[in-house]
Amino acid sequence: MTGIALFGAGTIGRVHARNIAAHPGCQLKYVVDTDIGRAEALCRAHGGQAAADVETALRDKAVDAVVVASSTSAHYAHLTAVIAAGKPVLCEKPIADDLGDAKRCADAAAGLVAATAFNRRYDASYLAVHERIRVGEIGKVEMIHIVSRTQAPTPAPESVRFSGGMLREKGSHHYDLAAWLSGAEPVEIFAAGDCLVDPGFAEYGDLDTAALTLRLDSGALVTFSFSRRTAFGYEEMIEVFGSEGMLEAGRQRRLGVALYKRDTVIEDGLHGGWYERFGPTYQAELDAFLAAAQGRGAAYASLVDGLRAQAVAEAAIRSVREKRVVPIERIW
Amino acid sequence: MTGIALFGAGTIGRVHARNIAAHPGCQLKYVVDTDIGRAEALCRAHGGQAAADVETALRDKAVDAVVVASSTSAHYAHLTAVIAAGKPVLCEKPIADDLGDAKRCADAAAGLVAATAFNRRYDASYLAVHERIRVGEIGKVEMIHIVSRTQAPTPAPESVRFSGGMLREKGSHHYDLAAWLSGAEPVEIFAAGDCLVDPGFAEYGDLDTAALTLRLDSGALVTFSFSRRTAFGYEEMIEVFGSEGMLEAGRQRRLGVALYKRDTVIEDGLHGGWYERFGPTYQAELDAFLAAAQGRGAAYASLVDGLRAQAVAEAAIRSVREKRVVPIERIW
Amino acid sequence: MTGIALFGAGTIGRVHARNIAAHPGCQLKYVVDTDIGRAEALCRAHGGQAAADVETALRDKAVDAVVVASSTSAHYAHLTAVIAAGKPVLCEKPIADDLGDAKRCADAAAGLVAATAFNRRYDASYLAVHERIRVGEIGKVEMIHIVSRTQAPTPAPESVRFSGGMLREKGSHHYDLAAWLSGAEPVEIFAAGDCLVDPGFAEYGDLDTAALTLRLDSGALVTFSFSRRTAFGYEEMIEVFGSEGMLEAGRQRRLGVALYKRDTVIEDGLHGGWYERFGPTYQAELDAFLAAAQGRGAAYASLVDGLRAQAVAEAAIRSVREKRVVPIERIW
Amino acid sequence: MTGIALFGAGTIGRVHARNIAAHPGCQLKYVVDTDIGRAEALCRAHGGQAAADVETALRDKAVDAVVVASSTSAHYAHLTAVIAAGKPVLCEKPIADDLGDAKRCADAAAGLVAATAFNRRYDASYLAVHERIRVGEIGKVEMIHIVSRTQAPTPAPESVRFSGGMLREKGSHHYDLAAWLSGAEPVEIFAAGDCLVDPGFAEYGDLDTAALTLRLDSGALVTFSFSRRTAFGYEEMIEVFGSEGMLEAGRQRRLGVALYKRDTVIEDGLHGGWYERFGPTYQAELDAFLAAAQGRGAAYASLVDGLRAQAVAEAAIRSVREKRVVPIERIW
Repeated sequence: MTGIALFGAGTIGRVHARNIAAHPGCQLKYVVDTDIGRAEALCRAHGGQAAADVETALRDKAVDAVVVASSTSAHYAHLTAVIAAGKPVLCEKPIADDLGDAKRCADAAAGLVAATAFNRRYDASYLAVHERIRVGEIGKVEMIHIVSRTQAPTPAPESVRFSGGMLREKGSHHYDLAAWLSGAEPVEIFAAGDCLVDPGFAEYGDLDTAALTLRLDSGALVTFSFSRRTAFGYEEMIEVFGSEGMLEAGRQRRLGVALYKRDTVIEDGLHGGWYERFGPTYQAELDAFLAAAQGRGAAYASLVDGLRAQAVAEAAIRSVREKRVVPIERIW
Repeated sequence: MTGIALFGAGTIGRVHARNIAAHPGCQLKYVVDTDIGRAEALCRAHGGQAAADVETALRDKAVDAVVVASSTSAHYAHLTAVIAAGKPVLCEKPIADDLGDAKRCADAAAGLVAATAFNRRYDASYLAVHERIRVGEIGKVEMIHIVSRTQAPTPAPESVRFSGGMLREKGSHHYDLAAWLSGAEPVEIFAAGDCLVDPGFAEYGDLDTAALTLRLDSGALVTFSFSRRTAFGYEEMIEVFGSEGMLEAGRQRRLGVALYKRDTVIEDGLHGGWYERFGPTYQAELDAFLAAAQGRGAAYASLVDGLRAQAVAEAAIRSVREKRVVPIERIW
Repeated sequence: MTGIALFGAGTIGRVHARNIAAHPGCQLKYVVDTDIGRAEALCRAHGGQAAADVETALRDKAVDAVVVASSTSAHYAHLTAVIAAGKPVLCEKPIADDLGDAKRCADAAAGLVAATAFNRRYDASYLAVHERIRVGEIGKVEMIHIVSRTQAPTPAPESVRFSGGMLREKGSHHYDLAAWLSGAEPVEIFAAGDCLVDPGFAEYGDLDTAALTLRLDSGALVTFSFSRRTAFGYEEMIEVFGSEGMLEAGRQRRLGVALYKRDTVIEDGLHGGWYERFGPTYQAELDAFLAAAQGRGAAYASLVDGLRAQAVAEAAIRSVREKRVVPIERIW
Repeated sequence: MTGIALFGAGTIGRVHARNIAAHPGCQLKYVVDTDIGRAEALCRAHGGQAAADVETALRDKAVDAVVVASSTSAHYAHLTAVIAAGKPVLCEKPIADDLGDAKRCADAAAGLVAATAFNRRYDASYLAVHERIRVGEIGKVEMIHIVSRTQAPTPAPESVRFSGGMLREKGSHHYDLAAWLSGAEPVEIFAAGDCLVDPGFAEYGDLDTAALTLRLDSGALVTFSFSRRTAFGYEEMIEVFGSEGMLEAGRQRRLGVALYKRDTVIEDGLHGGWYERFGPTYQAELDAFLAAAQGRGAAYASLVDGLRAQAVAEAAIRSVREKRVVPIERIW
């Protein structure tokens, strides 16, 4: 039974708390949050031991692992403390606001089980695509196309202050998928975008619509289509085109019910939101993290993978500004 | 260049005339119809030589083959004459109004190229299913399910006087498909039906909705779902379930365009009518008939196949009346 | 918190135990089984209070409801006892081996929350179809087609002694779906079948392949295609054809991954077995039962619904023997 | 009856000859080709009057319209002559090797029916998408994604000398689709590519794999994925994402037959080649051209549209070299 301290009692912290409580292999020990009331409530709701501060939580030998789901600005301090304590850690992305801080964390964590919460890696469909590329079903990967468009309503532009903007927040998940699926490293990126949905994003220096082209060191080209609002639910899909075939993890439908009427066949549409589509990946992610923490050798996204995705994001943002290809420095 | 006499200048006769005129391997010589004006007009429209009577057409040595598309009640006389003249013949189904007459035709035609116009056998999808069953992709055929439902508007009940009713007109095509796909012979049938669409059909002793179960001599069970009206175009599909897999020739869509909107994906529907769906099969049927007539050995549905389908139809009609399984006498 | 006694610690009992333990609104109190060791082990594994006999369990006021998942031959005695105790009950089908006993139970349960475990009613896709028929999307129901074919390996023919045979075991779920979806009552049935998969079933008077045609009092025709073995996983689908459209709950695929290779697109197939496909319905079924037991008015399949399905099954079996349509006596 | 002179008797010239001969509304008069024997043979095969030189063909008053399908290097001279003669013309793309020449042609043709052979505009699926965007089904267009990947075997790198390379040959069709579907004008482009299929293309300064991002003056972003070789037939698809929905003209399958086997559903794949997929569009294109030439007001792609696509192609080629966004000068 792995004892877990959870840092962060916000939206994503609550998802982790619920999954930790339901998992037969671990136990919620502490919840850490600057808002003590919120920490206590979450702890109580999921049978945790107590709300606590960072030091108390890390000092307790019954805490075998830590999940960091605090606000981004707290990540660096939290990660640094957990790594210093030598405990396995699963950290929401980004690792840190600053790329240099992120690199310091990744470097310091060498040898530890230190995971970045790239939950999409644990999606059953994506896992199948990953595995089937590995065994050679499509030969050499030459092109990847990834679509990720978020359902309406569009988030308020002010949210950019916390999220860092679409090319960081949404993007980093997908830069990671590209590297993970291809097994190749990012080399250079071009990004174009605009505010077609809500001009308000421009005031925060952000975009709501973007198309990116990433070159990998294998020569493969990866394209990304992002938007902050669809009129039809949460949309995500991946196509991997190789020299001997193409694998597609398509847009998933909800129910498999079709209505034949007049001159159409009206099928179920997409999931209403990202959580309906990817909710189960958080459980699988926790499962893989626990397995790794217990030395049972599961594959997981490391802090180094998180660092790589951040480096791509920073280059993408610069590319939008400079209207040119930006090389990605290999700091990971 | 095969010279062709066409008997019948009605709806289906016009389809044949058009295809004969467009086919590079044959030439329309005569059109025969009790309505001379209609025959002449059709002949002229497709570059034929002349309207004529049966004797004139059959006496001309330039007539190498005959297509019989006259009214059902004329089939027996027409077929008998063509067979006596020893010319290859393609006859619309049914072979004759009376099952005994149909048998006499089939017997008399032994050794001749004498084809029944089961045009669905020449559909590219059905041909593929047929071929793939032959090469063993699904093992031994155990169940077949065939759906055929006609688009709205429902035909007028009076049409039954000419068509012989749904279990003959629509049914015979599909009884033939079942035997052809399975390579097995019909043994007994159960049919249930009702007038759910239009009670007027009952006045003519007919149905508009029916479900049939046919047992083949291989033991396989074939089910048929028929209706005279859908709210969504012409619907036809076939599933063949075997010991090692299942082949499905699904409902075909028109365009391959999808609209993602709200919580649905709205795809193209079915073809508007049977001709949109199966029009091309008439050309393929003519092609196969010409190849056979010219001794190039193409596969085609024979008069014996037509006789078999008629025998099944008669048993089905009796089953509806007697509410029991009716054995199918092996007269073919 | 609803206290629950579970009768039966076999395969399906274990499914219920797991779901009861995981449900936040109820608590496992007792497990009753003739094999005390098995009852104790199951009780312990899921935090139950104790293994017990029927009387002890029913006498305890903390037992608010009972789930009967014992062997079919014990159903009658168990149901009778629970009904006499006036406790809400969810009973696996069939209600009783004998149709008369089943009727006695259904009659006795009048006024009680007494549910038959027709878990497919709680499938998200089937529920959607049910609801959409109710709101009129397809007009008047005219034809229903239901396919249910079980994955390989085929069960051993000896299993018939316990299951009652395919037309009872597999059939009753689907007779119930037909009545539930259409909102109409069964009137007469025709059933044809054979042993194409394993001749051993014939020794037990059973079939492994069957096609049935059920007529409802609305005039609608329902066809069923059943088999005890597919070469491609667990196959189930429903089509409901109405005067104004058709609703289809299609064969569900596993992952949504496709491989484009050579001249094919290789998609995911069906679920490996019925439990992979319908496992989640057991949780939804429990949820509905608890809601009804607590007076929160959920819809559920009653014992009367179970009785009806049994009456259809008995008529179907007679139809196979007598090769004719068998009227279904309205005993429910 | 429109009399037609066909310039060019090569591969695409033969497609036009066949369609002209089969079309009920026009007649093949002359075939013009530097290889007289080839011109004569093609003329004879399709019932044309005679092989001829440009002057003879254009002088004949029975020539009502001209189809230019000669080699690209001859386009400018041919087009100039036809425009001077004031006859309606349908010209294969590109209009001319040189962008300035192309502009001169487009300018000179003002007021004439002068069409560029962008045959994909006449595809039934693309037409449907175009029409449905017009009527507002998806609101304002924000993103378009177009995939075009050619089947194996890869063309020989030497072919670049005639085709002008992938970003011109393949690209121009798709730049045109983007502008036509969106109703917006190209503003700037970024293109990245490589030789992943065959390094031989690099020797000719060409690519075999490319990803492009085009910005339109509406703000919409268009992405293109191109490749010169797939392992699974000819692949083309279009997605148009708008503020109120998304329209998709998907990868078309050949037959609609599926095989359920083991844990997969094996469906038909794509068409074997571009001609199987887009062959029918050449007939529809001819039909639209004839209608326009006869003053029946059909919509068609003009020389101006052709010029625009060429301007995009040249900018794309420069972008690859300079690794930056290249503005597209508005010369059309």
